[in-house]
Amino acid sequence: MNAEIIAVGSELLLGQIANTNAQYISARLAESGINVYRHSVIGDNDKRLQKELEAAENRSDLIILTGGLGPTKDDLTKETAARHLGCSLCYDEKSLNAIEQYYVQTGISMTENNKKQALVLEGSHVLFNFHGMAPGMIKQTATSTYILLPGPPREMKPMLTEQVLPYLNDQNEENSLIYSKVMRFFGIGEADLETRIEDLLDGQTNPTIAPLAEDGEVTLRITANSHDIKIAETLVHDMVKILEDRVGEYCYGFDQDNLQQKASRLFTEKGLTISSAESLTGGLFSAEAAAIPGASSYLSGSMTVYNSEAKVNVLGVPREMIREFGPVSQECAESMAEQVRHKFGSDIGISFTGVAGPGDFEGIPEGTVWFGVSLKNGLVSSFKLTLKGDRNFKRIRAVKHGFYAIIQLIEKNTGPFVK
Amino acid sequence: MNAEIIAVGSELLLGQIANTNAQYISARLAESGINVYRHSVIGDNDKRLQKELEAAENRSDLIILTGGLGPTKDDLTKETAARHLGCSLCYDEKSLNAIEQYYVQTGISMTENNKKQALVLEGSHVLFNFHGMAPGMIKQTATSTYILLPGPPREMKPMLTEQVLPYLNDQNEENSLIYSKVMRFFGIGEADLETRIEDLLDGQTNPTIAPLAEDGEVTLRITANSHDIKIAETLVHDMVKILEDRVGEYCYGFDQDNLQQKASRLFTEKGLTISSAESLTGGLFSAEAAAIPGASSYLSGSMTVYNSEAKVNVLGVPREMIREFGPVSQECAESMAEQVRHKFGSDIGISFTGVAGPGDFEGIPEGTVWFGVSLKNGLVSSFKLTLKGDRNFKRIRAVKHGFYAIIQLIEKNTGPFVK
Repeated sequence: MNAEIIAVGSELLLGQIANTNAQYISARLAESGINVYRHSVIGDNDKRLQKELEAAENRSDLIILTGGLGPTKDDLTKETAARHLGCSLCYDEKSLNAIEQYYVQTGISMTENNKKQALVLEGSHVLFNFHGMAPGMIKQTATSTYILLPGPPREMKPMLTEQVLPYLNDQNEENSLIYSKVMRFFGIGEADLETRIEDLLDGQTNPTIAPLAEDGEVTLRITANSHDIKIAETLVHDMVKILEDRVGEYCYGFDQDNLQQKASRLFTEKGLTISSAESLTGGLFSAEAAAIPGASSYLSGSMTVYNSEAKVNVLGVPREMIREFGPVSQECAESMAEQVRHKFGSDIGISFTGVAGPGDFEGIPEGTVWFGVSLKNGLVSSFKLTLKGDRNFKRIRAVKHGFYAIIQLIEKNTGPFVK
Repeated sequence: MNAEIIAVGSELLLGQIANTNAQYISARLAESGINVYRHSVIGDNDKRLQKELEAAENRSDLIILTGGLGPTKDDLTKETAARHLGCSLCYDEKSLNAIEQYYVQTGISMTENNKKQALVLEGSHVLFNFHGMAPGMIKQTATSTYILLPGPPREMKPMLTEQVLPYLNDQNEENSLIYSKVMRFFGIGEADLETRIEDLLDGQTNPTIAPLAEDGEVTLRITANSHDIKIAETLVHDMVKILEDRVGEYCYGFDQDNLQQKASRLFTEKGLTISSAESLTGGLFSAEAAAIPGASSYLSGSMTVYNSEAKVNVLGVPREMIREFGPVSQECAESMAEQVRHKFGSDIGISFTGVAGPGDFEGIPEGTVWFGVSLKNGLVSSFKLTLKGDRNFKRIRAVKHGFYAIIQLIEKNTGPFVK
């Protein structure tokens, strides 16, 4: 099945938002064994959309449109699709009732254009919108399947996973199935990784191996297809084993299991708690740890201590130490990690101090970072980084290095972590 | 000038990353008065890319390609473009030298495929890559301008702004110029805002008004075009005045000046410092404040205090208060704000406590949030929110409400903020 995604919306062409819908839909379709061959973005323009639909019909079996289902004048996806398909629009009673109910309940008077949202393509399979007003729809023609989805991701995503994918999976039984796995690496660059597995990349057919660098992490996506999902799985797992032999020392996890998630799982498994003292990172380590459900069981707390006064008065770093070594130093990082661990009574304390820039600080070059890790048994480690990129990239990289160091300490050196 | 952007990369079609390059380029081109009429994404596939180039040539004057300039086998943008344009590839000496220098300096042995990155289209204007290896290029034909840019955003963005835009502006003098301004709203929904300005949206021609809802904020982008930029500016500013009369009470800022940025500017202007005590938000307020350069001058510090023990022992909230009113209460929020302000000696203390979910907590419904603001003069305010959406959406919304409340307090009630 050849699929393509057409996003409709001038806000995308003006650069107000990124087309994250296409990314999300593509990832979910790939998991269901459907290959997406193109994305396009068209403005809120009837003629250009009609032209795109004509071209799409000639190249794809599955055409997914996002956006343009709303109440306003520039929402025209349904109207253009109806003209292209030669069918009319009619009201979906369930959606119309839900829209009317909403206005009754909130006491807001309903404007006429809101009814427009309940219009659907005649003869289509209607996808009720549980998170908004405009329903989606699936329309089968002799040659293609058209799927119209609302633009707001919070409405589109559940509609896709709860209604569209089950529908497509029912249709899709005879097609080739795709299985893929992502290996996640840290501490090795993309070019270096590629060179070490160049022969494997060169010969890739089934499975394929796709490297990708993002935010200082590198991933390899291994993808196989087969009519039998078990065969596809075996092809992928065999290749993962080969890759692990080659570059496994840098592989810290798989699929969506990023550094934060992996660390959080380790904390929970081992019953460990952590606290952070953050200068350079300004609370980002804590916020990233807290983003994962269940964080309250392992994140004891954190302190952002930007200036030296706060480091001394609130966190308790000795004033003489900062005077002697400065706030961006191994000594300060280690003291910060120890102090915050004591303050919160946690098993692990981690600290970040550095020069985010722009510009050097007291003779220390921009990008210099020290981070410290203090353990309950009294052991203290510290790490120096030299980071490039803009202010926020440095902070994100520092936080990732922190999570990575803790993962390594827990996995490779279980001794100090036994309470 | 009709422009389009073609991104090349199978990782985009697999949903591994979003096409943020197209967003960035579109926004910058719009500022330069160039209309982008479509985005497309094509996989690393020679035939499909060639077909797309043929179609693009018939519809656009300016064709921007991103990605596929790297060293690996699946990087084929240059090769396909050369075939399509009927020209050959040759080495750019400056880029080749820089690549060779890199390997000499790092002591890594250079593989042959790295040289491939220095190949450029014959007769093209070469864009040196100051942040990576593969140069970009601009190739003029009789009918169109082709611009090839590297895929990694950190290489693409500076190449676009520092080299491509000046080049295009030189060519573009006779074209219509676009001027646009974004009005930023908080505390009003998209539908409500649209209803209040429906007549203006309906009649939109020049300037146009485009509403957009994102992360609980709503923006209106007002865009006008004219051969005289002054006329376009006047058209936009007149419309902004009309909109301010209508819905100005909800408009807190303009263009890229989001809530965090605006708050940070107010802190700097008034010489105010702030600290945060964060339960629900886990350090996110602090991290967002710290993301803005110069944060060290106003962000005194923050504490993440997730559990009640930390609230009592580290922050200093009275144990009896938590016992009586619970950790998610007006009383606890106010006490947290006061305590953190005292700890860090700041002018303002802000606190967040609530139930992020999933699920209720001690009988308090998921989504209940209290935040408190404590001022140096002893005044304490607190605010209750009922938030929907997933865990992280709630945290982001709470932080935005916090910034918004502080902006309002500073702007509308300067009294307590005079030190």
